[in-house]
Amino acid sequence: MGVVSGPNLGPSIAEILDSHAGGTGSPTKTAARVADAIAARGDDGTWLSTVPREDLLAAAAEIERRPDARTLPLYGVPFGVKDSIDVAGVPTTLSCPDYSYIATHTAPAVQHLLDAGALYVGKTNLDQFATGLNGTRTPYTVPRSVFGGDMISGGSSSGSALAVALGQVPFAVATDTAGSGRVPAALNGVIGFKPSRGLISTVGLVPACKSLDCITMMASCIDDVDRVFDVMAARDDADPWSRDRGPRHSGHPLTVGLPAVDELEFFGDDDMRRAHLAFRERLTGQADTVEVSLAPFLAAGELLYQGPWVAERLVVFGEFLAAQPDSIHPVVRDILRSGEKYSAVDAFAALQRLQELRAQVGRVWRDIDVLVVPTIGTTFTVDEVVAAPIATNTTLGHYTHFGNLLDLLGVAIPVGTTTGGRPHSVTVLSAAQRDDAALHLAARILDEPREATRLDTPAADLTFAVPEEHS
Amino acid sequence: MGVVSGPNLGPSIAEILDSHAGGTGSPTKTAARVADAIAARGDDGTWLSTVPREDLLAAAAEIERRPDARTLPLYGVPFGVKDSIDVAGVPTTLSCPDYSYIATHTAPAVQHLLDAGALYVGKTNLDQFATGLNGTRTPYTVPRSVFGGDMISGGSSSGSALAVALGQVPFAVATDTAGSGRVPAALNGVIGFKPSRGLISTVGLVPACKSLDCITMMASCIDDVDRVFDVMAARDDADPWSRDRGPRHSGHPLTVGLPAVDELEFFGDDDMRRAHLAFRERLTGQADTVEVSLAPFLAAGELLYQGPWVAERLVVFGEFLAAQPDSIHPVVRDILRSGEKYSAVDAFAALQRLQELRAQVGRVWRDIDVLVVPTIGTTFTVDEVVAAPIATNTTLGHYTHFGNLLDLLGVAIPVGTTTGGRPHSVTVLSAAQRDDAALHLAARILDEPREATRLDTPAADLTFAVPEEHS
Repeated sequence: MGVVSGPNLGPSIAEILDSHAGGTGSPTKTAARVADAIAARGDDGTWLSTVPREDLLAAAAEIERRPDARTLPLYGVPFGVKDSIDVAGVPTTLSCPDYSYIATHTAPAVQHLLDAGALYVGKTNLDQFATGLNGTRTPYTVPRSVFGGDMISGGSSSGSALAVALGQVPFAVATDTAGSGRVPAALNGVIGFKPSRGLISTVGLVPACKSLDCITMMASCIDDVDRVFDVMAARDDADPWSRDRGPRHSGHPLTVGLPAVDELEFFGDDDMRRAHLAFRERLTGQADTVEVSLAPFLAAGELLYQGPWVAERLVVFGEFLAAQPDSIHPVVRDILRSGEKYSAVDAFAALQRLQELRAQVGRVWRDIDVLVVPTIGTTFTVDEVVAAPIATNTTLGHYTHFGNLLDLLGVAIPVGTTTGGRPHSVTVLSAAQRDDAALHLAARILDEPREATRLDTPAADLTFAVPEEHS
Repeated sequence: MGVVSGPNLGPSIAEILDSHAGGTGSPTKTAARVADAIAARGDDGTWLSTVPREDLLAAAAEIERRPDARTLPLYGVPFGVKDSIDVAGVPTTLSCPDYSYIATHTAPAVQHLLDAGALYVGKTNLDQFATGLNGTRTPYTVPRSVFGGDMISGGSSSGSALAVALGQVPFAVATDTAGSGRVPAALNGVIGFKPSRGLISTVGLVPACKSLDCITMMASCIDDVDRVFDVMAARDDADPWSRDRGPRHSGHPLTVGLPAVDELEFFGDDDMRRAHLAFRERLTGQADTVEVSLAPFLAAGELLYQGPWVAERLVVFGEFLAAQPDSIHPVVRDILRSGEKYSAVDAFAALQRLQELRAQVGRVWRDIDVLVVPTIGTTFTVDEVVAAPIATNTTLGHYTHFGNLLDLLGVAIPVGTTTGGRPHSVTVLSAAQRDDAALHLAARILDEPREATRLDTPAADLTFAVPEEHS
């Protein structure tokens, strides 16, 4: 497989739509390009299954024949789907061959994409049962970050991040329970958008922690995120957590919360610290920033991985664990088993504690619109993760674990590299249903104009060039 | 102790304020009247402690000396407090002498009443640890309903309901986790108002199920409820569930949901069935009613008492149960112990199921403003409850268990008696933060004018006389 040292992004959705509309390209041509690009990589651990080339071209041709073809918002735009989400007729494996089944229905979130003219390409790799943030917990090929150095891809949505970072598809459907949609984005230099819980139906997703799971997307620009989000977001009475999108950002200048510097943790990774502090300096020079304590956020994150929520995974996987323990990845099996030790009293005590933290964090949003944190404090190689699978995973989730527990949304965006060429990502967090404000700031940081919004202040005031770190 | 056959209501808050303002009465005169009335009853199981007569008169005199005395919204209005809520310097017993402690702080909800000029009279009896809906689970005197016939008082807020029904105080502070503020109201012919969770701070309340507990009030008219609620409702950052009151009722005609008749359960109590159906007939003749299925409500109620929530009580009482099991009422002890058998997996599975039911019920409110159900399907004598403590309690909670799980509010109101002279009560339920709409309908049913609201339709259209059943 080819060597890369950073993302090699393909055309954006807007560029694909333009080429399909202008006749320089077509859905079948795009399908052929995607099939070629995937084939050229060989089995690099990105995809667990792909639509055969002939079938993909036929599906593209079928989209071309749709009477409304030219008005479809995602006309012929190719995409991948994390292999914990159902696509009718295709195996859902969850990276566990013995768990695998052929889906009979397509998840509504995916169906909305198909209805909008998007071209389904295949299923992407993941940490088994979406349990992990590192990408190594798969019996299939272990993927690597596009930044090379045997660096992990991150997970659990490893393949979805890679498919975008490799330029194979402009976007991929992923999920995020504890950071699975943000960590692999950070490790591959792409955008990972985890909307507010409930805006995208989770029907047809095999749950990890059902009360926390969120369907997300990987993309390479905010414009693509906006286009895909507009299609996927929809109320679904079959999803008990379903709710409406919040209002569009009004355009008022956003107040940006930043953790106190001494609360930031880079786990000894001084290059990452320097890259992040340099980013913050640019940010504070250009936006209204306020110092905010991370303490209640981190306390909630500790509840997730050092508390009873792991037991929620057993609601779905408990029977399989009992019946076929040897079919499960050893690390995942140990994690699942650890959920058996918690009592209902533990669960309610943790839920009460979480409510306290939610109330504390709720008050934080009185003073700020968004909070910007590193997405990950450091990176790991595959060997490092295999040697210490739990500790490295906990480290990777330091800035993500709390997100869904606290009912936040997050946009992980690439903002440069360290001196050594490793990726640096930040996450723009906000309270539920403020998705548009967070995407607004993300676009500004990426120096990307965003049609849907309007600013009270000159755009230049909030523009941050994507930096390359060469300190 | 005296024999009564129904409530013997005392003066309302408005009448007390008028008498204090007009000089025909005064806080000290009211204090003396209250002390005399309580003393005349002897130990009937209503109060667990009362302020000694001399101290009560001194406290009333102190209120009279306050510079702002005449503008205080509850100037000299006497009230009782359920003995699971702290009043500084007074024992909080929870009806468990060995658990009892002297409170060092007054609960904010009570402090707001004191600040408003109200006169604290004493602590009222309850089912131990607020665990029960019947009133018999106390090592102190077991109270009886004011309707006689050795009928239970209902619980757990037994004493608070009785103190109002006996005319000793115009209102009393109570609580409601699974119906504790509604069932005893029903059995004693008074109003039990359980506001939306979080509108009244629960700080200083010893929790039953902390995630569900609600501070409530007993009163004899909606006007008194309004006056007390206005004083008690306040955001409190120390209560993680604290939230704001919803808007005032706009005055639009309310659409009233009624369960299908064949879904109504009276447990063989045909007199109660007749009384309720006659009430419904009057209601449907005078308001816009819609048939609604109770199924998701009842399914949520079953989760509460046949599911893991009992384990939440152990978060608070687990240590005491382990250390001093013999100090606990045998029925309460068995209930608490039953919480030990649930795992965290059980808890998360039940929470997921609850979320499904919440979503279903959430859609019910698209079609109706309020839902009207019987408060209790039948009544019991003390002997009947002692003979079958769990089954009778479950029966009593049939229409109340689901309330807090589904984040509803409820106003239990007396609407007459059965042929045999037993009390008949209905509860007006609604979605959280629609308190004002529910109180509005409650006032209309009770034929009580309500200043704060304004109607689009002539008041007569929504007026229901309080019926006496003589079918």
